[in-house]
This record gives sequence, C-alpha cells and structure tokens, in this order.
Amino acid sequence: MLSRPDVAVVGAGPVGLAIAWRCAQRGLRVVVHDPAPGTGASHVAAGMLAPVAEAYFGERELTGLLTASAARWPAFAAELTAATGVDVGYRTEGTLMVGLTADDLAEARRLWAYQQGIGLPVTPLRPSALRDREPALAPRVRGGALAATDHQVDPRRLVPALRAAAERAGATLVPAVVRALSDVDARVTVVAAGCGAAALTGLPVRPVKGQVVRLRAPGGGAPGFRHVIRGYADGEPVYLVPRADGEVVVGATVEERADTDVSAGAVLRLLRAAVDLLPELAEYDLVETAAGLRPGTPDNAPILGPLPGRPGVLAATGHHRHGIVLTPVTADLIADLVVTGTADPLLAPFTPARFAPPEPAEPAPDAAALPGPAAVSGPAAAPGPAALPGPAVSVGRAPSGGPGVVAGPVVPAVESRSGAGPAVPEEEHTWN
Amino acid sequence: MLSRPDVAVVGAGPVGLAIAWRCAQRGLRVVVHDPAPGTGASHVAAGMLAPVAEAYFGERELTGLLTASAARWPAFAAELTAATGVDVGYRTEGTLMVGLTADDLAEARRLWAYQQGIGLPVTPLRPSALRDREPALAPRVRGGALAATDHQVDPRRLVPALRAAAERAGATLVPAVVRALSDVDARVTVVAAGCGAAALTGLPVRPVKGQVVRLRAPGGGAPGFRHVIRGYADGEPVYLVPRADGEVVVGATVEERADTDVSAGAVLRLLRAAVDLLPELAEYDLVETAAGLRPGTPDNAPILGPLPGRPGVLAATGHHRHGIVLTPVTADLIADLVVTGTADPLLAPFTPARFAPPEPAEPAPDAAALPGPAAVSGPAAAPGPAALPGPAVSVGRAPSGGPGVVAGPVVPAVESRSGAGPAVPEEEHTWN
Repeated sequence: MLSRPDVAVVGAGPVGLAIAWRCAQRGLRVVVHDPAPGTGASHVAAGMLAPVAEAYFGERELTGLLTASAARWPAFAAELTAATGVDVGYRTEGTLMVGLTADDLAEARRLWAYQQGIGLPVTPLRPSALRDREPALAPRVRGGALAATDHQVDPRRLVPALRAAAERAGATLVPAVVRALSDVDARVTVVAAGCGAAALTGLPVRPVKGQVVRLRAPGGGAPGFRHVIRGYADGEPVYLVPRADGEVVVGATVEERADTDVSAGAVLRLLRAAVDLLPELAEYDLVETAAGLRPGTPDNAPILGPLPGRPGVLAATGHHRHGIVLTPVTADLIADLVVTGTADPLLAPFTPARFAPPEPAEPAPDAAALPGPAAVSGPAAAPGPAALPGPAVSVGRAPSGGPGVVAGPVVPAVESRSGAGPAVPEEEHTWN
Repeated sequence: MLSRPDVAVVGAGPVGLAIAWRCAQRGLRVVVHDPAPGTGASHVAAGMLAPVAEAYFGERELTGLLTASAARWPAFAAELTAATGVDVGYRTEGTLMVGLTADDLAEARRLWAYQQGIGLPVTPLRPSALRDREPALAPRVRGGALAATDHQVDPRRLVPALRAAAERAGATLVPAVVRALSDVDARVTVVAAGCGAAALTGLPVRPVKGQVVRLRAPGGGAPGFRHVIRGYADGEPVYLVPRADGEVVVGATVEERADTDVSAGAVLRLLRAAVDLLPELAEYDLVETAAGLRPGTPDNAPILGPLPGRPGVLAATGHHRHGIVLTPVTADLIADLVVTGTADPLLAPFTPARFAPPEPAEPAPDAAALPGPAAVSGPAAAPGPAALPGPAVSVGRAPSGGPGVVAGPVVPAVESRSGAGPAVPEEEHTWN
C-alpha cells in the first residue's frame, strides 16, 4: 500500500464492488477487502430487477428505492459493459406474474391491485394473451399479469464485470478477511459485507437463507421461454429466470436459518412449482442446487449511511432480497456521501441510525425522529437534504467507540482528485 | 510386466475387481485394466441386495442367479473385510416393500403374490406391524410387506475394498483405456466393462440410464429409519436406502438413454415419492444428484461366459440393475471357468452364445437349445455341468475372429499355481 487509502470497502459483492467503482471513478484511492469476491449471496441470486413484482404491502419506502435503482439499471449496465466489454446479461423482456390455480390467482390479484394502486405498471393479461407471450406455460395456469419494466441481469456476470471496472478505475482488491473494522485503515470505511456486517458493526443484519436450483435447457439451446416468470403454484411462490445461455434459475426459499445446506424438501417444492407452471422444465438438466444467506433487516429495508458513533464508517448492507437491483443506487449514493459528506434525501429512510438503541439516561432519537420517509415519486417530494443523524450513538455490538456526540460530519468529505470523473447518468427517480 | 499374465480383466468395477480377486486367490497372474476404477455404474448404485424385491414376472432364471448370489453375500462381505479391514456397509435389517395409495398397494400385492408363489420369503405386514418396524413411514402408507433377506451393501465402500483385496492377492491395476481387445495380452481376457462391453465384443449390451439422489440426515446422525424401503407412491416406484453414516440413497429412474445428465423431472419424481413415503426426508440435506448407465441386455439378464468365436475371451457384463448383488456369484463362477475351462451349470442360461446370430447356411444353437434354466432352488435341481457352447459363432461387431468351429474349449484351462488358495466359503445356493 503506497499510502492510506481514501476508502476501504469491506466486501466484494456487487454492492461493495460498485461502490468501489464509483469511488475510484471520482478519483479516490480505494481498497476492497474480501477473501473471496462474489461468493456470497450474489453467487446464488437470480438477478431479478423487480421493483414492481417485489412491491409488497407496507414497504412503500423500499419500493421507492427499488424503483429508483431499477431506473438506473439500463445506463448502469451499458456503462459497465462499455468499461469492461463484459455482457452482464441485462435483459428487458419483462416479467410475467401468474397464478396456477384459482386460489393462486386470487392471491396474486390482491398484490397486483396494491401495486397498481401505488402507480406501478402492472398489466393484467387475458389467458390468451398470456399464452401468446409464453406458449410454454402450463395450460392450467389460470391467469397472469405483465410487469414489463421488471428486468433481469446475471449476477455471475455482474460481479466479474464490476470487479474489472473497479480495478480499471484504480481500485485495489485485497484478498484478506476483515475480522474487525480496526483491521482496515482508511479515511472512510464502507461496510458492504452482507451478513458479515452484523459482526463488524453490531447492526441488526441477520442471515435469511434462500435455496435456489439452476437448470439448463437440454441440447445447449436457449430456454423455451423469454420472460422472467413469477408465480404461485398451489400456494408455493416461485420464480423462473431464463438466461440466453440456456440457464434457468428457479428460486427461492425464504428461511430464517443461517446454514447453507440444501434440503430435499426445498428442492422438491421449487421443482414441483416450476414444473407445474412450465412443464417442459422437467426435461431440463438440473445442474446446480445452492443456498445463500441474504442480509435481512428488521424492516426488510437496506441499511445505508453513517454508522452512529463510528466516525468515518458507512454501512451499505441489509439489502436482503434486493441486493442486485439496489446495486446502482447504493453505489451512487454512497459514493456521493463519501465525496460530499452529505446524504442524499433518498437515503434518509435507510439510515443505520434507525436501529440505534435508546440511550439509558437520555433517550436518543429513534427512527421516528429521523427525517420523514422519501416519497416513492422521488426527490421532488422528498424532504430536503438529510442532516446527518445526530447525536450519533453506539449500536448494539459495535466493537469500539462508545456513545458520544460526533464533532462535525460523521463522514468526512473526501475531495475528489479527478474532478467529476466519468459522467454518472442522471436518471429520473419516478417510475415510467 | 514381468511376463504375459494369465488373466486380463477389462473393467475395475465391482464385477471386474471381484473376478480379479478370485483369480489372484487361485494363484493366477492377473492384470486389471481401467483408467478410472469404480467410476461407472457402481458409483451411482444404491447397493441393494434384493433378489426377492427384484423378482419380476418372467425372470425366473435371473431370480435364481440373484438368489444364489445374495446367499453368498454374508460370507463374501466377511471375507472381504477380513482381507482388507474395510467395512463395506453390509446391513441385514431387511427390506420393507410398501404401497402409498390403495392403487399402489394393489400393484405391489400382485408382485408379492408372484414372489411368494415361487417360494420367496415375502411376509405381508399389518399397518400396525409396518409402523412398529418403521415409525417414520407416512401415516397414509396403506400397507407393506417384509423381505427380511433382502439386504444392502455400500458400493462406494465395496469398490475400494475389492481393489485392495485384489491387489493384496497379487493382482495389478493398469490405469489405461482398453479400446479393443487386441490392446490386452493374456491367456484369458475377461470383459467386465459394463456398457463398454458392447464396443469391445459386439454383445448386445446397451446403456440404461438411472438417476439417483443422495440425501443426508441433518445433524450428522443416522437416518430415522433402518430398513431399505421400496415402494410405489402414486404409481412412482422408488427405493430409500439408509446408511449408518447418515446417507440415504433415493433411486432410481430406468431410462433408455445414454447420457448421464441429471434432469429436473427425475429429481422431482424421486424426491416427491421419497417424501410421500417418508415425510422426514424433506428435512434431509440434498447432497448429490447423479446418473449412471447400467449395462442392460435384451432379456435383462447378465452375459456370463465364453464369447463365441473368440477363444480365450470371457464376458462378465450385462448385469443391468443387479451388478452389486451378482458380484460374488459372478466372480466365483468366472474364476472357476478360467481355472477349469468348464462352466458351472448356473451359468448356462447366461451364456453369451444366446445372443449369437444364426449362421446363414447352418443355424447355430440359440438360447432355446442351451441347457435348461437353472432352477431357483439351486444346483441340486439344475442340469449337470454345462457343455461349452459349440460350435462358437461370431457375434455382431466382434472386432476379429470370423465364424468357425473352435477346436477344444473356448477357455483354455489355466492351472492354478498355488493350489487351492484361500478357502472360498461354500454357500448353499438355496434360499433360506
């Protein structure tokens, strides 16, 4: 190491690598620590970019962030490919949401109505229109809807591309385990360690196991369907993600467990639901079963921003089921925060401070006292630039740094050495 | 190589290795050729020793051989363990045969009646007795029967044990591919190459694909059941083989295909049937999926004995679903044939000559002209020593040696150099 880096990123998954890339583009000296880049949750993930299909009741703020990030994906993928020559498998055929039985369809329609009600583009399809789009769907699939703007990318292509882009922009990868934040030395440390963030920061990030099966179309051809298909099959939620190279990802369980064993029951449920929706999958090769650990949080939303009581430490974790879709917005906003020391309003609902425990004597601000939630429709409706949370307090298992008021911004502004760097496309945060 | 070996065995699966062991015990110089010992069908096989449960309509002669070989298994396993110190996982808890639905049970009962009718020990069990034996069976399993004498062994332990035994007895392994029988030079060549026998000999051995799933009891313990369980579940035949180390083998498909791809549909069907019969398996880890190619034959029976038109060449292939159970009897009888030049009557129904095409001018003997079938009850009821089939004729794709009468025995008698060698236990061929 020639000199103390400006930024140390802990974790070389998509989020960490994209942050490293964006920071290096701004001319910062960046080091990324990871003994095994890209082997965490992203290696198992299907790569759906699905703010519409993943818009659930009671998660409006998360939906806003997902929507904002999905809108950045076309330019993000194009820029990444331009920088590296790597095709990251970004596909825009859209997503079909289907129900196998009448009960499945009724359940799905409740959600579609909610999604339409908050302005998301869900288009119900007549059965004939559904089959026109995907003739391979089982005849007994009762109905469906199109989320044309829910796209996909291949995480196993994305990670090498991001790594190459970050390294070409000047970032350095260090293949070492970080057991405590004191292991790294930089002006700003970004913890993008997925589930590993819990031990490093004390943040309430917990592993949420997901099991996934990978199939391959026989004969080396492309799968016999083009859309991402998500559905319920006899009550079992399942998704099917077709890749151009013949792979089909079938996922995923959501289990409150911390092991990565693949269970017979999970594979059975996934395959049964998959074959019920798309019978031809029975003839596909089963090429991989895997389990990964998503970094879950108490409110299912990511944790993005300054770590209370730890000046110079930022969190970028807790992305749960949404790490791939949230990669662009996370990278952009965290890089901005590193450079300017000021948090974009989009980050406000996701601040680590929302999980800070109240101080015994003098209650610290909790989530309710933070700036109001960013509206789904984007910055125009959001509150002004978020003040950095203060006073910062220590969190649960923070390995060092007691409670106390932080003098000045938690994140020291780091001057960019190379001016603006490559233009980061401006995307509207509204859904269109 | 010091001198021309007495016996060259092509194929180091269980059959080839056991033949090599038996021949080496007789004092013969033995070389076994295989680039990858034990990686063929036996690596996938479950290792059921099931002459009763596998006794099917119209296969009386095969049932007789299965029964004779299963009766040799206790002594064979004991001798192998004594010779090598390897526990081959021979277990004698017996096999439960069950039906999930009323239809499944009706189908199973037809077969049990046939098996009982030919004197095999099948004991129908009341549902309460069934559950006393295996409390983990699904409550909706309608009924079952016990085949107490159908045991199991672990093929992945068996192969290394046989290899060690053969080598300790003096056999040499040569890790080379044999592409034609002219590649090997020995007084007698034994083709024990499974599906590979077709290309080497022209015999009608075809690959019959079998897919198998391996589970493991969670927590490192033994499975929650002790018997081999075979059954029908909504028409799907399945078997579940528990190992002491926690493994459970779930098998198997029977497909007329020559690829070893694992298909989603096969894994789905196997897991569904397995979990239907034994619900706790859903919680087991799925640790392996695999496909192997059984060496099938036109009449489902093995091909054992002198190759017509190829003096000094013996076949020991075509064991199809029964390679593991048939290993002891195959090894004993082929070794006898090598040493004495005379075929045991038990071999008569399985001679390669039964597939010899008739000669254009003068019809050659076909299977119907061979000595009558060995009775199930063993040698006492079998015809006297079988004459070697003659005149020998060439078979389909034999790479050399045109049709013609062979002068003298097809297999030259090879004198044993060390007298009797280690005692091979005498087993009664009757079932008890």
